[in-house]
Amino acid sequence: MASELKESPSNNPGLCVEPDEATKEYYMQQTMFRIKDPKLSLDFYSRVLGMKLLKRLDVPEMKFSLYLMGYENTATAPAIPSDRTVWTCQKVIIELTHSWGTESDPQFKGYHNGNSDPHGFGHIGITVDDVYKACQRFEQLGVEFVKKPDDGKMKGLAFIKDPDGYWIEIFDLHRIGHITTYAS
Amino acid sequence: MASELKESPSNNPGLCVEPDEATKEYYMQQTMFRIKDPKLSLDFYSRVLGMKLLKRLDVPEMKFSLYLMGYENTATAPAIPSDRTVWTCQKVIIELTHSWGTESDPQFKGYHNGNSDPHGFGHIGITVDDVYKACQRFEQLGVEFVKKPDDGKMKGLAFIKDPDGYWIEIFDLHRIGHITTYAS
Repeated sequence: MASELKESPSNNPGLCVEPDEATKEYYMQQTMFRIKDPKLSLDFYSRVLGMKLLKRLDVPEMKFSLYLMGYENTATAPAIPSDRTVWTCQKVIIELTHSWGTESDPQFKGYHNGNSDPHGFGHIGITVDDVYKACQRFEQLGVEFVKKPDDGKMKGLAFIKDPDGYWIEIFDLHRIGHITTYAS
Repeated sequence: MASELKESPSNNPGLCVEPDEATKEYYMQQTMFRIKDPKLSLDFYSRVLGMKLLKRLDVPEMKFSLYLMGYENTATAPAIPSDRTVWTCQKVIIELTHSWGTESDPQFKGYHNGNSDPHGFGHIGITVDDVYKACQRFEQLGVEFVKKPDDGKMKGLAFIKDPDGYWIEIFDLHRIGHITTYAS
Protein backbone atom coordinates (compact mmCIF):
# COMPACT_ATOMS: atom_id res chain seq x y z
CA MET A 1 0.00 0.00 0.00
CA ALA A 2 2.79 2.38 0.89
CA SER A 3 4.04 2.29 -2.69
CA GLU A 4 0.71 3.64 -3.88
CA LEU A 5 0.94 6.75 -1.75
CA LYS A 6 1.54 10.00 -3.55
CA GLU A 7 4.46 10.46 -1.16
CA SER A 8 6.08 7.13 -2.04
CA PRO A 9 9.66 7.11 -3.38
CA SER A 10 8.53 5.55 -6.65
CA ASN A 11 6.42 8.65 -7.25
CA ASN A 12 9.13 11.06 -6.11
CA PRO A 13 12.49 10.62 -7.83
CA GLY A 14 15.35 11.73 -5.63
CA LEU A 15 13.52 11.03 -2.37
CA CYS A 16 15.46 9.09 0.24
CA VAL A 17 13.07 7.41 2.69
CA GLU A 18 15.64 6.10 5.12
CA PRO A 19 17.36 9.23 6.40
CA ASP A 20 20.98 8.93 7.37
CA GLU A 21 21.36 8.16 11.09
CA ALA A 22 23.66 11.21 11.24
CA THR A 23 20.64 13.48 10.77
CA LYS A 24 18.44 12.06 13.50
CA GLU A 25 18.78 15.05 15.84
CA TYR A 26 18.28 17.68 13.15
CA TYR A 27 15.27 19.97 13.30
CA MET A 28 13.86 22.90 11.40
CA GLN A 29 14.40 25.85 13.69
CA GLN A 30 14.26 29.20 11.95
CA THR A 31 13.37 31.35 8.98
CA MET A 32 15.22 34.62 8.56
CA PHE A 33 14.13 37.66 6.60
CA ARG A 34 15.14 41.29 6.66
CA ILE A 35 12.97 44.06 8.05
CA LYS A 36 13.08 47.81 7.55
CA ASP A 37 11.70 49.04 10.88
CA PRO A 38 11.70 46.91 14.05
CA LYS A 39 9.10 49.13 15.68
CA LEU A 40 6.58 48.24 12.97
CA SER A 41 7.57 44.57 12.79
CA LEU A 42 7.59 44.03 16.56
CA ASP A 43 4.16 45.61 16.74
CA PHE A 44 2.83 43.46 13.91
CA TYR A 45 4.25 40.13 15.00
CA SER A 46 3.43 40.61 18.70
CA ARG A 47 0.16 42.55 18.70
CA VAL A 48 -1.41 41.22 15.51
CA LEU A 49 0.04 37.70 15.36
CA GLY A 50 0.63 37.08 19.07
CA MET A 51 4.32 36.23 18.92
CA LYS A 52 6.81 36.91 21.70
CA LEU A 53 10.26 38.39 21.45
CA LEU A 54 12.18 35.33 22.59
CA LYS A 55 15.62 36.80 22.10
CA ARG A 56 17.26 39.95 20.80
CA LEU A 57 20.85 40.06 19.61
CA ASP A 58 22.68 43.28 18.75
CA VAL A 59 25.88 43.43 16.72
CA PRO A 60 27.10 47.04 16.95
CA GLU A 61 30.29 46.55 14.91
CA MET A 62 28.20 45.38 11.98
CA LYS A 63 25.26 47.64 12.80
CA PHE A 64 22.47 45.11 12.85
CA SER A 65 20.09 43.53 15.33
CA LEU A 66 18.29 40.22 15.28
CA TYR A 67 14.81 39.80 16.73
CA LEU A 68 14.01 36.12 17.31
CA MET A 69 10.25 35.70 17.59
CA GLY A 70 7.94 32.79 18.17
CA TYR A 71 5.05 31.27 20.08
CA GLU A 72 6.67 30.40 23.37
CA ASN A 73 6.13 31.38 26.96
CA THR A 74 8.98 33.74 27.75
CA ALA A 75 8.18 33.39 31.47
CA THR A 76 10.17 30.15 31.32
CA ALA A 77 13.15 31.73 29.53
CA PRO A 78 16.49 31.71 31.39
CA ALA A 79 17.73 35.06 32.69
CA ILE A 80 21.36 34.62 31.59
CA PRO A 81 21.58 36.02 28.04
CA SER A 82 23.59 33.18 26.47
CA ASP A 83 21.34 30.59 28.12
CA ARG A 84 18.37 32.45 26.70
CA THR A 85 19.91 32.16 23.24
CA VAL A 86 20.20 28.38 23.63
CA TRP A 87 16.64 28.20 24.98
CA THR A 88 15.41 30.19 21.98
CA CYS A 89 17.24 27.93 19.54
CA GLN A 90 15.24 24.98 20.84
CA LYS A 91 12.06 26.67 19.59
CA VAL A 92 10.65 27.37 16.16
CA ILE A 93 11.22 31.00 15.35
CA ILE A 94 11.36 33.71 12.77
CA GLU A 95 14.54 35.75 12.81
CA LEU A 96 13.94 39.36 11.82
CA THR A 97 17.15 41.06 10.76
CA HIS A 98 17.37 44.83 11.06
CA SER A 99 20.25 46.73 9.49
CA TRP A 100 20.41 49.89 11.54
CA GLY A 101 19.19 53.03 9.84
CA THR A 102 16.93 51.62 7.14
CA GLU A 103 13.86 52.76 9.06
CA SER A 104 14.81 56.44 8.65
CA ASP A 105 16.77 56.37 5.39
CA PRO A 106 14.79 58.11 2.61
CA GLN A 107 17.02 56.36 0.04
CA PHE A 108 16.11 52.90 1.32
CA LYS A 109 13.65 51.32 -1.06
CA GLY A 110 12.48 48.46 1.11
CA TYR A 111 12.90 44.72 0.91
CA HIS A 112 11.80 42.29 -1.77
CA ASN A 113 9.20 39.70 -0.76
CA GLY A 114 10.11 37.13 -3.41
CA ASN A 115 6.68 37.02 -5.05
CA SER A 116 7.50 39.22 -8.05
CA ASP A 117 10.61 39.11 -10.24
CA PRO A 118 13.04 37.86 -9.21
CA HIS A 119 10.94 35.12 -7.59
CA GLY A 120 12.22 32.89 -4.81
CA PHE A 121 10.94 32.92 -1.23
CA GLY A 122 7.15 32.80 -1.06
CA HIS A 123 5.77 33.14 2.44
CA ILE A 124 5.65 31.91 5.99
CA GLY A 125 2.48 30.23 7.22
CA ILE A 126 0.66 30.57 10.54
CA THR A 127 -1.94 28.07 11.65
CA VAL A 128 -4.82 29.71 13.50
CA ASP A 129 -7.84 28.40 15.38
CA ASP A 130 -10.38 29.72 12.87
CA VAL A 131 -9.35 31.41 9.63
CA TYR A 132 -12.56 33.48 9.28
CA LYS A 133 -12.46 34.69 12.85
CA ALA A 134 -8.76 35.48 12.57
CA CYS A 135 -9.21 37.37 9.30
CA GLN A 136 -12.13 39.36 10.66
CA ARG A 137 -9.83 40.51 13.46
CA PHE A 138 -7.02 41.28 11.00
CA GLU A 139 -9.42 43.43 8.99
CA GLN A 140 -10.43 45.33 12.11
CA LEU A 141 -6.74 45.87 12.85
CA GLY A 142 -6.15 47.26 9.35
CA VAL A 143 -3.93 44.42 8.15
CA GLU A 144 -3.33 44.33 4.40
CA PHE A 145 -4.59 41.24 2.60
CA VAL A 146 -3.14 39.52 -0.46
CA LYS A 147 -6.12 37.17 -0.46
CA LYS A 148 -9.13 37.19 1.83
CA PRO A 149 -10.47 33.78 2.84
CA ASP A 150 -13.30 33.82 0.30
CA ASP A 151 -11.33 35.30 -2.60
CA GLY A 152 -10.56 33.01 -5.51
CA LYS A 153 -11.05 29.26 -5.64
CA MET A 154 -9.32 28.36 -2.39
CA LYS A 155 -12.08 29.30 0.06
CA GLY A 156 -11.05 29.23 3.69
CA LEU A 157 -7.41 30.14 3.20
CA ALA A 158 -5.95 33.64 3.35
CA PHE A 159 -2.74 35.56 2.77
CA ILE A 160 -1.86 38.74 4.61
CA LYS A 161 1.16 41.07 4.38
CA ASP A 162 3.55 42.02 7.13
CA PRO A 163 4.88 45.63 7.37
CA ASP A 164 7.63 44.90 4.81
CA GLY A 165 5.21 43.28 2.38
CA TYR A 166 6.21 39.67 3.10
CA TRP A 167 3.31 37.27 2.62
CA ILE A 168 1.89 35.22 5.49
CA GLU A 169 -0.48 32.35 4.80
CA ILE A 170 -3.31 31.99 7.31
CA PHE A 171 -5.25 28.74 7.63
CA ASP A 172 -6.79 26.41 10.17
CA LEU A 173 -6.74 22.66 10.71
CA HIS A 174 -10.52 22.33 10.48
CA ARG A 175 -10.58 23.49 6.88
CA ILE A 176 -7.17 22.76 5.33
CA GLY A 177 -7.88 19.10 4.60
CA HIS A 178 -11.06 19.90 2.72
CA ILE A 179 -9.59 22.91 0.91
CA THR A 180 -6.75 20.87 -0.56
CA THR A 181 -8.74 17.73 -1.37
CA TYR A 182 -8.60 18.41 -5.10
CA ALA A 183 -4.82 18.39 -4.90
CA SER A 184 -4.22 15.64 -2.41
CA MET B 1 14.48 42.87 36.79
CA ALA B 2 12.36 42.09 33.77
CA SER B 3 12.56 45.69 32.65
CA GLU B 4 16.34 45.38 32.40
CA LEU B 5 16.24 42.54 29.93
CA LYS B 6 17.30 43.29 26.39
CA GLU B 7 13.97 41.79 25.38
CA SER B 8 11.92 44.10 27.61
CA PRO B 9 9.24 46.30 26.05
CA SER B 10 11.01 49.45 27.20
CA ASN B 11 13.96 48.43 25.05
CA ASN B 12 11.80 47.38 22.10
CA PRO B 13 9.35 50.02 20.90
CA GLY B 14 6.31 48.47 19.29
CA LEU B 15 6.53 45.23 21.27
CA CYS B 16 3.30 44.02 22.83
CA VAL B 17 4.02 41.68 25.72
CA GLU B 18 0.48 40.61 26.45
CA PRO B 19 -0.63 38.93 23.24
CA ASP B 20 -4.29 39.15 22.37
CA GLU B 21 -6.22 36.15 23.68
CA ALA B 22 -7.46 35.68 20.11
CA THR B 23 -3.98 34.55 19.07
CA LYS B 24 -3.44 31.91 21.72
CA GLU B 25 -3.76 28.93 19.36
CA TYR B 26 -1.59 30.38 16.60
CA TYR B 27 1.66 28.68 15.69
CA MET B 28 4.44 29.08 13.17
CA GLN B 29 3.92 26.23 10.76
CA GLN B 30 5.63 26.71 7.43
CA THR B 31 8.13 28.47 5.20
CA MET B 32 7.56 28.33 1.46
CA PHE B 33 10.12 28.85 -1.28
CA ARG B 34 10.21 27.91 -4.94
CA ILE B 35 12.39 25.18 -6.37
CA LYS B 36 13.53 24.47 -9.90
CA ASP B 37 13.87 20.68 -9.83
CA PRO B 38 12.08 18.47 -7.27
CA LYS B 39 14.41 15.56 -7.97
CA LEU B 40 17.39 17.60 -6.79
CA SER B 41 15.55 19.20 -3.88
CA LEU B 42 13.98 15.96 -2.62
CA ASP B 43 17.41 14.34 -2.74
CA PHE B 44 19.04 17.21 -0.87
CA TYR B 45 16.43 17.67 1.84
CA SER B 46 15.92 13.94 2.46
CA ARG B 47 19.36 12.40 1.92
CA VAL B 48 21.56 15.29 3.05
CA LEU B 49 19.36 16.96 5.67
CA GLY B 50 17.28 13.95 6.76
CA MET B 51 13.83 15.40 6.15
CA LYS B 52 10.79 13.36 5.17
CA LEU B 53 8.23 14.08 2.51
CA LEU B 54 5.25 14.55 4.80
CA LYS B 55 2.81 15.49 2.08
CA ARG B 56 2.72 16.12 -1.63
CA LEU B 57 0.01 18.18 -3.32
CA ASP B 58 -0.39 18.44 -7.10
CA VAL B 59 -2.42 21.13 -8.80
CA PRO B 60 -2.59 20.11 -12.50
CA GLU B 61 -4.80 23.00 -13.62
CA MET B 62 -2.18 25.46 -12.39
CA LYS B 63 0.74 23.18 -13.20
CA PHE B 64 2.48 23.15 -9.87
CA SER B 65 3.24 20.74 -7.04
CA LEU B 66 3.93 21.33 -3.37
CA TYR B 67 6.35 19.17 -1.42
CA LEU B 68 5.82 19.59 2.33
CA MET B 69 8.92 18.41 4.15
CA GLY B 70 9.94 18.17 7.78
CA TYR B 71 11.37 16.11 10.59
CA GLU B 72 8.47 13.87 11.47
CA ASN B 73 7.88 10.15 11.50
CA THR B 74 5.72 9.47 8.47
CA ALA B 75 4.94 6.01 9.83
CA THR B 76 2.34 7.73 12.01
CA ALA B 77 0.79 9.68 9.11
CA PRO B 78 -2.85 8.93 8.25
CA ALA B 79 -3.49 7.03 5.02
CA ILE B 80 -6.42 9.17 3.85
CA PRO B 81 -4.90 12.01 1.78
CA SER B 82 -6.90 14.89 3.28
CA ASP B 83 -6.23 13.58 6.80
CA ARG B 84 -2.56 13.45 5.94
CA THR B 85 -2.71 17.12 4.93
CA VAL B 86 -4.18 18.03 8.31
CA TRP B 87 -1.58 15.87 10.08
CA THR B 88 1.18 17.63 8.12
CA CYS B 89 -0.16 21.06 8.99
CA GLN B 90 0.30 20.25 12.67
CA LYS B 91 4.04 19.96 12.08
CA VAL B 92 6.76 22.46 11.27
CA ILE B 93 7.58 22.21 7.61
CA ILE B 94 9.18 23.73 4.57
CA GLU B 95 6.92 23.94 1.56
CA LEU B 96 8.83 23.51 -1.70
CA THR B 97 6.84 24.82 -4.64
CA HIS B 98 7.60 23.43 -8.08
CA SER B 99 6.16 25.06 -11.19
CA TRP B 100 6.13 22.24 -13.70
CA GLY B 101 8.73 22.43 -16.43
CA THR B 102 11.34 24.72 -14.85
CA GLU B 103 13.67 21.75 -14.37
CA SER B 104 14.00 21.23 -18.13
CA ASP B 105 13.45 24.75 -19.45
CA PRO B 106 16.72 26.17 -20.85
CA GLN B 107 15.22 29.67 -20.61
CA PHE B 108 14.59 29.35 -16.88
CA LYS B 109 17.21 31.35 -15.02
CA GLY B 110 16.65 29.93 -11.56
CA TYR B 111 15.30 31.43 -8.36
CA HIS B 112 16.59 34.31 -6.29
CA ASN B 113 17.79 33.49 -2.79
CA GLY B 114 17.25 36.96 -1.34
CA ASN B 115 20.86 37.53 -0.29
CA SER B 116 21.84 39.78 -3.18
CA ASP B 117 19.90 42.68 -4.68
CA PRO B 118 17.00 42.81 -4.23
CA HIS B 119 17.50 41.63 -0.66
CA GLY B 120 14.71 40.15 1.44
CA PHE B 121 14.54 36.55 2.60
CA GLY B 122 17.78 35.37 4.15
CA HIS B 123 17.80 31.71 5.07
CA ILE B 124 16.23 28.85 6.95
CA GLY B 125 18.12 27.37 9.89
CA ILE B 126 18.58 23.76 10.93
CA THR B 127 19.78 22.81 14.39
CA VAL B 128 22.11 19.80 14.34
CA ASP B 129 23.71 17.67 17.04
CA ASP B 130 27.28 18.81 16.26
CA VAL B 131 28.05 21.52 13.71
CA TYR B 132 31.59 20.29 12.95
CA LYS B 133 30.53 16.69 12.52
CA ALA B 134 27.57 17.71 10.37
CA CYS B 135 29.69 19.95 8.17
CA GLN B 136 32.34 17.28 7.71
CA ARG B 137 29.58 15.02 6.41
CA PHE B 138 28.23 17.80 4.16
CA GLU B 139 31.71 18.26 2.69
CA GLN B 140 31.96 14.55 1.96
CA LEU B 141 28.57 14.74 0.25
CA GLY B 142 29.73 17.63 -1.91
CA VAL B 143 27.43 20.26 -0.40
CA GLU B 144 28.27 23.85 -1.29
CA PHE B 145 29.17 26.11 1.61
CA VAL B 146 28.54 29.83 2.00
CA LYS B 147 30.53 29.74 5.24
CA LYS B 148 32.35 26.82 6.80
CA PRO B 149 32.20 26.60 10.59
CA ASP B 150 35.66 28.11 11.09
CA ASP B 151 35.41 30.80 8.42
CA GLY B 152 35.18 34.39 9.62
CA LYS B 153 34.62 35.55 13.18
CA MET B 154 31.62 33.38 14.01
CA LYS B 155 33.42 30.09 14.68
CA GLY B 156 31.16 27.11 15.10
CA LEU B 157 28.36 28.27 12.83
CA ALA B 158 27.98 27.44 9.14
CA PHE B 159 25.91 28.26 6.09
CA ILE B 160 25.33 25.83 3.25
CA LYS B 161 23.39 26.14 0.00
CA ASP B 162 20.52 24.00 -1.22
CA PRO B 163 20.25 23.03 -4.93
CA ASP B 164 18.56 26.35 -5.79
CA GLY B 165 21.14 28.39 -3.92
CA TYR B 166 19.00 29.16 -0.86
CA TRP B 167 21.07 29.55 2.28
CA ILE B 168 20.68 27.20 5.24
CA GLU B 169 22.23 28.06 8.58
CA ILE B 170 23.71 25.11 10.46
CA PHE B 171 24.41 25.31 14.19
CA ASP B 172 24.17 23.32 17.40
CA LEU B 173 22.88 24.02 20.88
CA HIS B 174 26.22 23.30 22.54
CA ARG B 175 27.94 26.18 20.78
CA ILE B 176 25.28 28.75 19.86
CA GLY B 177 25.16 30.38 23.30
CA HIS B 178 28.90 30.94 23.36
CA ILE B 179 29.11 32.03 19.71
CA THR B 180 26.57 34.79 20.23
CA THR B 181 27.76 35.95 23.65
CA TYR B 182 29.21 39.17 22.23
CA ALA B 183 25.77 40.05 20.87
CA SER B 184 23.55 38.81 23.65
